[in-house]
Amino acid sequence: MADKSFQSLPGFRDFTPRDCAVRNYLFSVWRDVAHRYGFSEYEAPIVESTELYLKKTGGELATQLFRFEDQGGRDITLRPELTASLARIVGANQRDFPKPLKWFEIGPCFRYEKPQKGRGREFIQFNADIIGESSAGADAELIALAIDTMLSLGFRSGDFVIRASDRESWLTFCSEHSISNPSEFLPLVDRLEKLKPEVLEEQLAHFSVTRQQVDDFINNPENASPAFKEIRENLNARGLGEYLELDLTIVRGLAYYTGAVFEIFDTKKSMRAVAGGGRYDGLLSTLSNGAADLPATGFAMGDMVIQNFIESTPNAQLEMEAWMARNPACELYLIVADESKRNDALGVISQLRSGGISVDYPMNQLGVGKQFKKAQQSGARFALVVGSEFPEMQLKNLSSRSEQSINHTTDLSEVIQAHLDAPDGPLIA
Amino acid sequence: MADKSFQSLPGFRDFTPRDCAVRNYLFSVWRDVAHRYGFSEYEAPIVESTELYLKKTGGELATQLFRFEDQGGRDITLRPELTASLARIVGANQRDFPKPLKWFEIGPCFRYEKPQKGRGREFIQFNADIIGESSAGADAELIALAIDTMLSLGFRSGDFVIRASDRESWLTFCSEHSISNPSEFLPLVDRLEKLKPEVLEEQLAHFSVTRQQVDDFINNPENASPAFKEIRENLNARGLGEYLELDLTIVRGLAYYTGAVFEIFDTKKSMRAVAGGGRYDGLLSTLSNGAADLPATGFAMGDMVIQNFIESTPNAQLEMEAWMARNPACELYLIVADESKRNDALGVISQLRSGGISVDYPMNQLGVGKQFKKAQQSGARFALVVGSEFPEMQLKNLSSRSEQSINHTTDLSEVIQAHLDAPDGPLIA
Repeated sequence: MADKSFQSLPGFRDFTPRDCAVRNYLFSVWRDVAHRYGFSEYEAPIVESTELYLKKTGGELATQLFRFEDQGGRDITLRPELTASLARIVGANQRDFPKPLKWFEIGPCFRYEKPQKGRGREFIQFNADIIGESSAGADAELIALAIDTMLSLGFRSGDFVIRASDRESWLTFCSEHSISNPSEFLPLVDRLEKLKPEVLEEQLAHFSVTRQQVDDFINNPENASPAFKEIRENLNARGLGEYLELDLTIVRGLAYYTGAVFEIFDTKKSMRAVAGGGRYDGLLSTLSNGAADLPATGFAMGDMVIQNFIESTPNAQLEMEAWMARNPACELYLIVADESKRNDALGVISQLRSGGISVDYPMNQLGVGKQFKKAQQSGARFALVVGSEFPEMQLKNLSSRSEQSINHTTDLSEVIQAHLDAPDGPLIA
Repeated sequence: MADKSFQSLPGFRDFTPRDCAVRNYLFSVWRDVAHRYGFSEYEAPIVESTELYLKKTGGELATQLFRFEDQGGRDITLRPELTASLARIVGANQRDFPKPLKWFEIGPCFRYEKPQKGRGREFIQFNADIIGESSAGADAELIALAIDTMLSLGFRSGDFVIRASDRESWLTFCSEHSISNPSEFLPLVDRLEKLKPEVLEEQLAHFSVTRQQVDDFINNPENASPAFKEIRENLNARGLGEYLELDLTIVRGLAYYTGAVFEIFDTKKSMRAVAGGGRYDGLLSTLSNGAADLPATGFAMGDMVIQNFIESTPNAQLEMEAWMARNPACELYLIVADESKRNDALGVISQLRSGGISVDYPMNQLGVGKQFKKAQQSGARFALVVGSEFPEMQLKNLSSRSEQSINHTTDLSEVIQAHLDAPDGPLIA
């Protein structure tokens, strides 16, 4: 590893088979939950016109773009997020789709940031959006999806919580305190804990409010908006209410959020946010030059932060390991104990694979001992030994070391599948 | 669509849900076949250091790179293919993995080419490689994987054929005809059908051979190499021999191929090549500066060409449609016929989704007629009507229009699943 030429670029990852299996586990859970919620998958290009991203409010992203000129002189950018592409696609095709749209996407995004734990320059995001439905019922559906994503990843009550608020609450506060420019006031709420107390007091003073007034507002649950109350009732009806907490300090940094906003917190690691989302009713119109003037609410989760969270949470780690055990790279290793039977072995391999079984084998002549070593390394639970007695074969359980004779029959795949489906104890008779 | 700002960049595609389902079908088949063959999935970064691609022989790619400088002054490139990354990853980690490696990858690649049917600037490639095994058995395993990929996509005998050759055959030819620079002669073989006859004759004359000598060599099956004969016997033993043809004109354009090479042809569309591969024993060493000096054989298939082929082949088109019918965006649409029962409906939805069923429903109050219209649009086969008689509900088959009463019980998911699993005739009792 001394040679730098073997390394990926800083902030970019190689997914060797073990890492790729972790990634595929996340993909599998994300797709499964989205599917159960009736969301349809879409995908956008990885490269878009830079103009598309500069339209979006929020200056931070502009400095983090992987932006360049292509051979045709176009100013293009590796996508830093998906909403801009989503607005473009919906703007172009919206007459083709009955509203509301429930769409999800899973794919890589790119940001030029300092690489650190949980943050890379290439990361994978799960995005789910509901477009064309302004009711709180849509916010509740999206939050329920977020909760079920966490539960499906093996997180339990106590591991995580959804903290939600509604920007409408703060608009009421602004109106009651004669704050005429809420869009300048809200970023202060976002930084209540980050600013030094004296700086905060000074900045609040510009709006003629005190820290005490802000704290009193935050601590009074009566300040939950009607939409929040509806979301709570909706989640209670689903049996998911226990995961939702009102937290009026959640407003999310970006200017385009308009209504209910939420973040998923890790309850252990000093309440780190692991995913978030919210309502952005004006953004699609802005991004599509008015073509897709549709209310929307969306949610995004990145692979790196959630993987760290899984690996620090025993329930979730176990769930992931169980999935991997159910999805081994190889189920059966075929051992050619007599080279003169190789063609028979190839026929058996072809038959088993056609029957849906994952089979590996030595592609060239190799001693039987070495083949058993390969069988162990392959991760397969069983070895099938084809030798001079063929069509009689030996099926060995590689962990219990038990074995039994098995005959080459037309239903061999079903026979082997029954062994694979049985718990890993003594072989079935 | 008049507004250009709704369009993706030229050569880049939006995958709306229908297109994404086609993509997911390809992913599903590719992953399933690779899994049955005991291949492990890996993934490389989408962006690599440009240097990595300039090392690879074959000048054509260098002019087609999406190449740029990042904010840290690095010369970086969107990957045009996977082999360079694979060499880098294997070079860095090879001691961690017992050989041979059987690895596959599915992901986007980028080339700045003139967009046309079957060729985009962003396309998805399925790559499978066997590394660390020099025997013809590895070439046969890879070709078998290619054949089974085609069969799993619903192609049948007569739709496609694998044409294979071995560069070793031509090295023998060169030796017999005292051609001292085979690497200059082989590109001529690659262009036998593309060059004008008189130009070809002239160029062959530089090597002191005639067109007749070349044709005689090509037409004599005795010129198949020992490796080709072994591959044929191997595929025969698997029952896949009928898909393989010797074709000595196949040498593949790129200079790095060293042994058996093959292409999959569409037998109808004037024998268009839809995928290909071959042995490249020296390339990993070149790309990894000697760190991974391993023999290798690989295969790649792009999504755009194979999708065109599927759509022009009835068997394959039917197979794809059948997969989509088995994987609808939504299985059941829940109709809230009495708004006062919405909370009960949400409880039922939550229960069904936890039971693995894909459920959609109206997130806001809507007339029952409109809800039935939404149910039809959703693609669901069934509607479940929750009304004033709850916990009694009505289950309607949306195609046959038959219906039956159903009670809210703890095993509701199993009851509904039984309906979903039943063929789409009259409802089961």
